Amino acid sequence: MAVYTQVSEEELARFVTGHGLGELRSCKGIAEGVENTNYLIETVKGRFILTLYEKRVAPENLPFYLGLMEHLASKGIACPLPVRDRDGEQVAELAGRAAAIVTFLDGISARLPTPRQCALLGQTLAQMHLAGSDYPRKLENSLGPQGWVQLYDRFKPRAHEVLPDLPAVVETEFAVLLPNWSTDLPKGVIHADLFPDNVFFLGDRLSGVIDFYFACNDLLAYDIGICLNAWCFDVSRRFDRDKAAALLGGYQSVRRLTPAEGRAIPVLARGAALRFLLTRAHDWIATPKDAIVKPHDPADYVARILQHRQMTRPADYGFED
Amino acid sequence: MAVYTQVSEEELARFVTGHGLGELRSCKGIAEGVENTNYLIETVKGRFILTLYEKRVAPENLPFYLGLMEHLASKGIACPLPVRDRDGEQVAELAGRAAAIVTFLDGISARLPTPRQCALLGQTLAQMHLAGSDYPRKLENSLGPQGWVQLYDRFKPRAHEVLPDLPAVVETEFAVLLPNWSTDLPKGVIHADLFPDNVFFLGDRLSGVIDFYFACNDLLAYDIGICLNAWCFDVSRRFDRDKAAALLGGYQSVRRLTPAEGRAIPVLARGAALRFLLTRAHDWIATPKDAIVKPHDPADYVARILQHRQMTRPADYGFED
Repeated sequence: MAVYTQVSEEELARFVTGHGLGELRSCKGIAEGVENTNYLIETVKGRFILTLYEKRVAPENLPFYLGLMEHLASKGIACPLPVRDRDGEQVAELAGRAAAIVTFLDGISARLPTPRQCALLGQTLAQMHLAGSDYPRKLENSLGPQGWVQLYDRFKPRAHEVLPDLPAVVETEFAVLLPNWSTDLPKGVIHADLFPDNVFFLGDRLSGVIDFYFACNDLLAYDIGICLNAWCFDVSRRFDRDKAAALLGGYQSVRRLTPAEGRAIPVLARGAALRFLLTRAHDWIATPKDAIVKPHDPADYVARILQHRQMTRPADYGFED
Repeated sequence: MAVYTQVSEEELARFVTGHGLGELRSCKGIAEGVENTNYLIETVKGRFILTLYEKRVAPENLPFYLGLMEHLASKGIACPLPVRDRDGEQVAELAGRAAAIVTFLDGISARLPTPRQCALLGQTLAQMHLAGSDYPRKLENSLGPQGWVQLYDRFKPRAHEVLPDLPAVVETEFAVLLPNWSTDLPKGVIHADLFPDNVFFLGDRLSGVIDFYFACNDLLAYDIGICLNAWCFDVSRRFDRDKAAALLGGYQSVRRLTPAEGRAIPVLARGAALRFLLTRAHDWIATPKDAIVKPHDPADYVARILQHRQMTRPADYGFED
């Protein structure tokens, strides 16, 4: 939950009018998103999300993220559409921050997704991968294998404070994953943070995908690895093969994985678990004790890694070619 | 900002359906209100606020608060209307909390109200006082003069930790205010927490009054004293007589103050400042350093009290009879 930046009603009204949205009818700070300040606003033109970008989003990457949303929305993906201001800009300054307005999407996130929801997620993920294939901007993934090593170097001396066996877990994963990481799989634009929080459902359909602020160019199947970690473990951190099979089945109904991608699933899923373990452990150490936003528990991802170590065949993830 | 309690999507959908509101279309935790958890929800029937009452609201008082909103709304006051569930109840349990759904109100709060907005506030306050005159339920004000003394007793030994001169300020105020507190002025239902946060404007009209969780029976003019403190000081804590005159003028255009009420304004405004100083000082001490919600600064109200001490005539507040 987070409203880091307060905006005066005059500045807000001016910003909204400058986007051609007419008179502001309501504005509520919303308790979603850890990185940025978000307001749900309503005008005569409808509902929108106003985001003020806080320090963790690099302003120079905003054209990639917002351009991607516009690109995907134009291809029918249910993602927020950035509203350009009268100068044609997607990003402008508000209260000393880079800020943007995007369309609001209906729907509710699934706290514990069903297999059916995993299948819908898989379909949409594949549709996003296809829709992104001709997106012209590029942004390297700063949280790929090289990024993991750099990130770990930043908190290595204090890693044991998070969990006593964290250093051993990370070193083992590096030793196994770095030499086995595929680089010749199909690449493209990936969401890279597609947790259930970032997906909305309405009845039996997937109604929205949000939060493209980790999107980048990387292996398409790495995005699947991320979703397997984010969607297919239950509350007691146990892997649910049925959900994984549904997710992969949904994905393949839209975009068939290559044989090499299928073979890489165990390594990619395991790598994705390491990526989230590392960022969570880093944030755990970096977050002041009195912070407004509590960091996620890194132990969730140690538990996942221990299971991934036992799952070496694609079929262990419910993959069928 | 506060979302203390998380609700699963199934529980939420059941709760909303149980209120006859149809399918839930969206739900966002909102960063408003320090006391409770609030969600802005939307269904086919419109937008609503779902509130889960946290520990500071006594469940036994909810029928008073929610009944009052229903009563005032039925008389045309722009306040939230509680939605009764299929059993006719305004309050039901959700996620282990007492919870209620009320209608959503359009509008934006004024961070720094204009004299015109103060006049509108005065009018609406008087309309609320008249509309509440036949509300049958009763609830004593726990934050009247007796309540101040009891509250101060709870943190007196640590009062100097808040501000070194706090004990002296409080003792002086008790000595002046307690013997001079009027008890024979017109009484009725007061809002008792009508800060700018709790009032919405849309264009040139006042579109909503929210947050009735301090409402109670007390002197009507004490509510004016609270508003004078909450609306008529600028950001550098200086009293603005024009705003006060506008507020009182707006009020009197709807309900004329009695001569005794007019005379009591300086004491009532000063007492209201003491009430907020005491609750803020108490919360300042009681709030853990790592709390999600930061307490308000008590010094704002010491500054007000020092000015009230210089303003002994009703005319100092812009009052004209």
